[in-house]
Amino acid sequence: MAHPVSPLAPKTYPELPVIAGVRFATAEAGIKYKGRTDVLLAAFDPGTSVAGVFTRSKCPSAPVDWCRDNLGRGVARALLVNSGNANAFTGMKGRTTVEVSAAHAAKALGVPAGEVFLASTGVIGEPLDPAKFEAVTRDMATRLEPGPWMDAAKAIMTTDTYPKLATATADFDGITVSIAGIAKGSGMIAPDMATMLSFVFTDAPISAPVLQALLQPLIERSFNSITVDSDTSTSDTCLVFATGKAGIEPIVSAEDPRAKLFAAALGDVLHDLALLVVRDGEGATKMVTVTVDGATSDASAFRIARSIANSPLVKTAIAGEDANWGRVVMAVGKAGEPADRDRLSIAFGDFTVAEHGERAAGYDEAAASAYMKNQDLELRVGLGLGSGTATVVTCDLTHGYIDINGSYRS
Amino acid sequence: MAHPVSPLAPKTYPELPVIAGVRFATAEAGIKYKGRTDVLLAAFDPGTSVAGVFTRSKCPSAPVDWCRDNLGRGVARALLVNSGNANAFTGMKGRTTVEVSAAHAAKALGVPAGEVFLASTGVIGEPLDPAKFEAVTRDMATRLEPGPWMDAAKAIMTTDTYPKLATATADFDGITVSIAGIAKGSGMIAPDMATMLSFVFTDAPISAPVLQALLQPLIERSFNSITVDSDTSTSDTCLVFATGKAGIEPIVSAEDPRAKLFAAALGDVLHDLALLVVRDGEGATKMVTVTVDGATSDASAFRIARSIANSPLVKTAIAGEDANWGRVVMAVGKAGEPADRDRLSIAFGDFTVAEHGERAAGYDEAAASAYMKNQDLELRVGLGLGSGTATVVTCDLTHGYIDINGSYRS
Repeated sequence: MAHPVSPLAPKTYPELPVIAGVRFATAEAGIKYKGRTDVLLAAFDPGTSVAGVFTRSKCPSAPVDWCRDNLGRGVARALLVNSGNANAFTGMKGRTTVEVSAAHAAKALGVPAGEVFLASTGVIGEPLDPAKFEAVTRDMATRLEPGPWMDAAKAIMTTDTYPKLATATADFDGITVSIAGIAKGSGMIAPDMATMLSFVFTDAPISAPVLQALLQPLIERSFNSITVDSDTSTSDTCLVFATGKAGIEPIVSAEDPRAKLFAAALGDVLHDLALLVVRDGEGATKMVTVTVDGATSDASAFRIARSIANSPLVKTAIAGEDANWGRVVMAVGKAGEPADRDRLSIAFGDFTVAEHGERAAGYDEAAASAYMKNQDLELRVGLGLGSGTATVVTCDLTHGYIDINGSYRS
Repeated sequence: MAHPVSPLAPKTYPELPVIAGVRFATAEAGIKYKGRTDVLLAAFDPGTSVAGVFTRSKCPSAPVDWCRDNLGRGVARALLVNSGNANAFTGMKGRTTVEVSAAHAAKALGVPAGEVFLASTGVIGEPLDPAKFEAVTRDMATRLEPGPWMDAAKAIMTTDTYPKLATATADFDGITVSIAGIAKGSGMIAPDMATMLSFVFTDAPISAPVLQALLQPLIERSFNSITVDSDTSTSDTCLVFATGKAGIEPIVSAEDPRAKLFAAALGDVLHDLALLVVRDGEGATKMVTVTVDGATSDASAFRIARSIANSPLVKTAIAGEDANWGRVVMAVGKAGEPADRDRLSIAFGDFTVAEHGERAAGYDEAAASAYMKNQDLELRVGLGLGSGTATVVTCDLTHGYIDINGSYRS
């Protein structure tokens, strides 16, 4: 079931650098797809620290449970990812599958099973046979290389229409620290192919607690600030691995000024990957950046921005290139957050369409309509109540979404 | 922009009884539509009590503000409704419009303006000229009749594909009390045509405070338990008018045993009208009753049921006749309510598809798929935690929804 490449796909892909201490390989395990890779094995040198953030779903997948359990050690020696089956809602069988898969990878690489991180993406509720991993992990362990990243990004795709890669560097007194990241996702949850996964690798020497402390707020401003369809996956996973091979003194405190510099670069990578996921949103033809300001708090602004970004009526209007601010008013009103109709202002790009609780005096329908024909749109809502602000990025809702998700699984 | 009649439309319409003390007329005011009625004026005899429930939107329409302000008096002499323009987000102009429109109706009928209730449905943000009402209210006041209800139900339609009527009676020692109700709505909010409106009329003698006390919980179990697209209107309004003409002693206490009997009949009418709205959901081809039990509380069950009923992925799967319980697991998980993956059970109709946190042992894909071809579906989720239960009724999400909402306003 191949879908056409998103019209919002990037025109070029970045060249990702080698990350010292990271080697990987991909393989065809035949889990669901035929004639394409569906497994990624990455091996990390000793001394690699790890941080992670996972789905808030109350029904998380077995690999999410496994990673959460092992994250406390703060060290990682391997990452095993498969596409085609999410190993979610698979009961005790799912738990057994993660244990056996991790054991296969551990044996192939000669590392402790508790330091093998796992992620699975694909159909929910189908048992995943761990035997699928035995031969391929043994084989991949003999073929590990520090590149190319494109192969890794492709092996983890499900309904994605293009691979997702991003990179950034930070400079510490002339020494460059590199960050390379890959992601998959075509919805907060894609069809049966549940999941948004992201893996980021760096040669920075940074302790696991500091990495974890830096990661959480960056996730809020990247992956947690995008939405395709308001449906949260059982498998959402973001893991960051730091090999420590760059020649700088280790960063062991979040107060270290270098931590801020590193976080800025890491934030760039996560932000780029998050936007790549929205731009591959199922059926998307337009990307919309929704910014709310003047709210009573940042949290309130975020809830209003999310209410707008998730509204089917706002999203279908954008698909129809209609500057339908009445639906934006509706979405502000239903958010349940403090709002005063008579202070509300709304702008599409530079075109103020509403202010003081009614249509703007200088409203020019033709100009606003012309703006809506753009592929990348900005929607700004001013509440006029306080200084809270937030941004959520979304896509439009089109026939393509129905085509992808309304067809039968098999 | 006429849409084909919903495949879920009722095959027949009920005959609504005359309600003593209620007379009405409809007219063509040319507010937006051509060649159809768009205004309804109802007049009530002296002694009519009124109760109402309105949208929780923070950006309510001007008529909603007006009704809220006047509801405290508990008495009503008239109802004036228009379709084609919601008079929402229209600033001070909107306030003036409700005042002037109410004055026109009050003058035509010789009643106090504060006892005229108003509702408007249609496009948001366009000023509504109150002059449109002057001649037509004067004319309608000369043509008031106790029927036919079908005319009233048609005059308030926007993108509705059929009129919505329901009736019930309650018997008090041989004396029959009648209830007649009409509604409009094709989404919790329809396209630009904002709004779900419902008006119910009864000859029961029942005081305004008792009527209000009975109404609120009935609304929770009827209109507040349906969803088409998760988008809450700026104009949602339900008003109940009781003329008191039935020959029974007045009901002036909610503890009166007759109040319970009356509430049951009123609940039937509201429930019927709510289902008629879902069955006319934009683009709907299937109606789905989602029942959650075993939750830690009724409120928790309701939030989980709503999460399932609003999920675009669940709704597109139903459109595709796919018993995709993986997406139901996802929607339970994202609700944020107490849930234990390993106790979860899911059934479509009589077909248990998942139990104990995994696919049911006796799962028969062919049988479940055959069931999904029905027009009316039941989806039951058991949480196995407590005794909380709730039901939410929804429809599927199809290309029709995109067609209706993704086209330009003009």
